[in-house]
Amino acid sequence: MSESEPAATDLESVLAANTGFYDAFEHRDFDAMSDLWGHHADASCTHPGWSTLKGWASISASWATLLANPQHLQFILTNVRAVINGDTGWVTCDENILDGPGSSTVAACKVFIRDPAAPHGWRLLLHHGSVVHASLS
Amino acid sequence: MSESEPAATDLESVLAANTGFYDAFEHRDFDAMSDLWGHHADASCTHPGWSTLKGWASISASWATLLANPQHLQFILTNVRAVINGDTGWVTCDENILDGPGSSTVAACKVFIRDPAAPHGWRLLLHHGSVVHASLS
Repeated sequence: MSESEPAATDLESVLAANTGFYDAFEHRDFDAMSDLWGHHADASCTHPGWSTLKGWASISASWATLLANPQHLQFILTNVRAVINGDTGWVTCDENILDGPGSSTVAACKVFIRDPAAPHGWRLLLHHGSVVHASLS
Repeated sequence: MSESEPAATDLESVLAANTGFYDAFEHRDFDAMSDLWGHHADASCTHPGWSTLKGWASISASWATLLANPQHLQFILTNVRAVINGDTGWVTCDENILDGPGSSTVAACKVFIRDPAAPHGWRLLLHHGSVVHASLS
């Protein structure tokens, strides 16, 4: 943490970037998802139950596959928290996922770096999700 | 990422802080684990399968319970990668866990902030682990 409190606008913008991720996922919009991410080797993504994907080449391939799935998902986010430290921000939240007959909760964290060219001013470099609870009807 | 490459010593020290986490876990050393963490509300910890714990009060209680378990665990880390952005560093790795008869792999990420008073100069503010594969004999 900086010694001073982070600007409210920094917290708001990194939270908007976090919301953008779920909007892209719900709309199965690969281009919007791609725009959020840093397209280089330092990016990492851990989908629930998966091993960690390193680098944009692997991550983009995973999103191309996941977003091609026609199943409708709705994400209701709870316990959303953001922290800013200089030019880095990270967000934790619970993804409450409705997929028609079933629902599940995924605990997620994301790391963003400040980038004026990125949507909402923050570029996504890390996403990690893991299932907390799954109920299938 | 900073426009300049991060100093090798920054990468080395944040990786040492990451190793310190597993040393504390293997030795079931609560004090060493506690020293790594930021003791405030912004800390978050997601143990495999758990919901995210927010704040040091909840996180410390979880470590007190976990580290009181007498079962010997050995952590073999693979795919360890660190990224530095200013005064923030994050590390991803696979925890290959040997617990006697069984073994499992946990994908993990951690976020540290620079703090000269912390072990290795980095204070842990986020840990997230999730099981990739479990085999029980």
